[in-house]
Amino acid sequence: MNSHSQGCYLGVLGGMGPMAGAAFALRLAALTPAAVDQQHIPTLLRNDPRIPDRSSAHMAGGESPLPYMVEGVRFLEQSGAQLIAIPCNTAHLWYEQIAAATRLPVLHIIQAVIDDLRRLGLPRGRIGLMGTAATLKLGLYQQRLQAQGYDCVVPDEDEVERYCMESIRAVKANRLEDAYAPAAECIVRLRARGADAVVLGCTELPLAVPHALRPSLGVTLTDSIDALALAAIGHYQADRERERIAA
Amino acid sequence: MNSHSQGCYLGVLGGMGPMAGAAFALRLAALTPAAVDQQHIPTLLRNDPRIPDRSSAHMAGGESPLPYMVEGVRFLEQSGAQLIAIPCNTAHLWYEQIAAATRLPVLHIIQAVIDDLRRLGLPRGRIGLMGTAATLKLGLYQQRLQAQGYDCVVPDEDEVERYCMESIRAVKANRLEDAYAPAAECIVRLRARGADAVVLGCTELPLAVPHALRPSLGVTLTDSIDALALAAIGHYQADRERERIAA
Repeated sequence: MNSHSQGCYLGVLGGMGPMAGAAFALRLAALTPAAVDQQHIPTLLRNDPRIPDRSSAHMAGGESPLPYMVEGVRFLEQSGAQLIAIPCNTAHLWYEQIAAATRLPVLHIIQAVIDDLRRLGLPRGRIGLMGTAATLKLGLYQQRLQAQGYDCVVPDEDEVERYCMESIRAVKANRLEDAYAPAAECIVRLRARGADAVVLGCTELPLAVPHALRPSLGVTLTDSIDALALAAIGHYQADRERERIAA
Repeated sequence: MNSHSQGCYLGVLGGMGPMAGAAFALRLAALTPAAVDQQHIPTLLRNDPRIPDRSSAHMAGGESPLPYMVEGVRFLEQSGAQLIAIPCNTAHLWYEQIAAATRLPVLHIIQAVIDDLRRLGLPRGRIGLMGTAATLKLGLYQQRLQAQGYDCVVPDEDEVERYCMESIRAVKANRLEDAYAPAAECIVRLRARGADAVVLGCTELPLAVPHALRPSLGVTLTDSIDALALAAIGHYQADRERERIAA
């Protein structure tokens, strides 16, 4: 065994929800340029669904997920992670506290989505937002998008509940067949209000809207799972390039 | 934080290949009866693709993966795993040595597939086998299936290389679009030789043959990723039932 068998992991704080955590690992593998197993990014996924619900904590005074998330990130750090990814948008309401609890870099999913918009040819424009009620109400996307020159189109409270939350709950309950219609309805409404692109800004939403059905929706979609995976791949490629130059 | 935030994990020794490890975590979530995040099985997936190739070790005298697999299982045990799953059929050539290196129960993927055949209504019959050349040549499936009253239909060496290995290599290289045709050809050939069911006996093969396309192939398929996930779910449900009775 050589020294490469230990550490050097991408640490993934998953479980929020568990299908989103696993889908992140799958999309990470699918989007990594690799010809054989050994060229993929070593990943340690802690897919622990027992973390208290992020939306309930923010919207209804439920138990805070922060101590669980901090404990999870520290576990990943102690286990050899060199970079942290958190495939849950709502969890990023606590981003600063999580980042302060570890010496590792923590990817920011909202920034990853904005980088993805630029990659998709949208350096500015009107961006339609989908996500949990907590993510949208607390302006997690709006603040960063507006600071970087974008306008936002946000569903109203009733639409968030009927289309976004309905779809998210269906994914979390493994009713994928019920998740597509409400999500698609929201996308169509945001497009009708002039959105140049729509953000699937909750990691359950990419599971509700399968890649194969996206072209039919007639608007650019950015997927927070894929955007975070691309950010992780970019970080690893930059690290390897630095190592190559230093060698 | 309550005591449930620590430990009690299903430990997954993944990375063989990385897409199969992630797909296992995804199918585990999809197949678990759960209404909310918190009812899913806490999972720790070490998706480390740096483990030396299992087929090369057995067929071409390459570096042994065993020390890496033992180190991985011990890491999972130390991290709070209570049960181990290894979503790689070929890795089970070393099952006895891995199981001897940990005090945890280790699910056996081949036995999980045979249990799945019974669940699918096939307590006996002719079973077509697909897998790596190493898995098939060393009789990993044949020994257990025959001991439990099944007959086996095995592709010849040329078919293994042209259909099974070609499809497996395409998945490992992220060329999913090239993986379906050779796998489907092998399934059709095994069916023509009288197979009552065909085993996708390498964890890359379920990725090559998407669920949506399976009904068109005209033969019962058992999928070693799904079978292993169902075995893990069954193990957890039995544990919870024991806890309920003891409480």
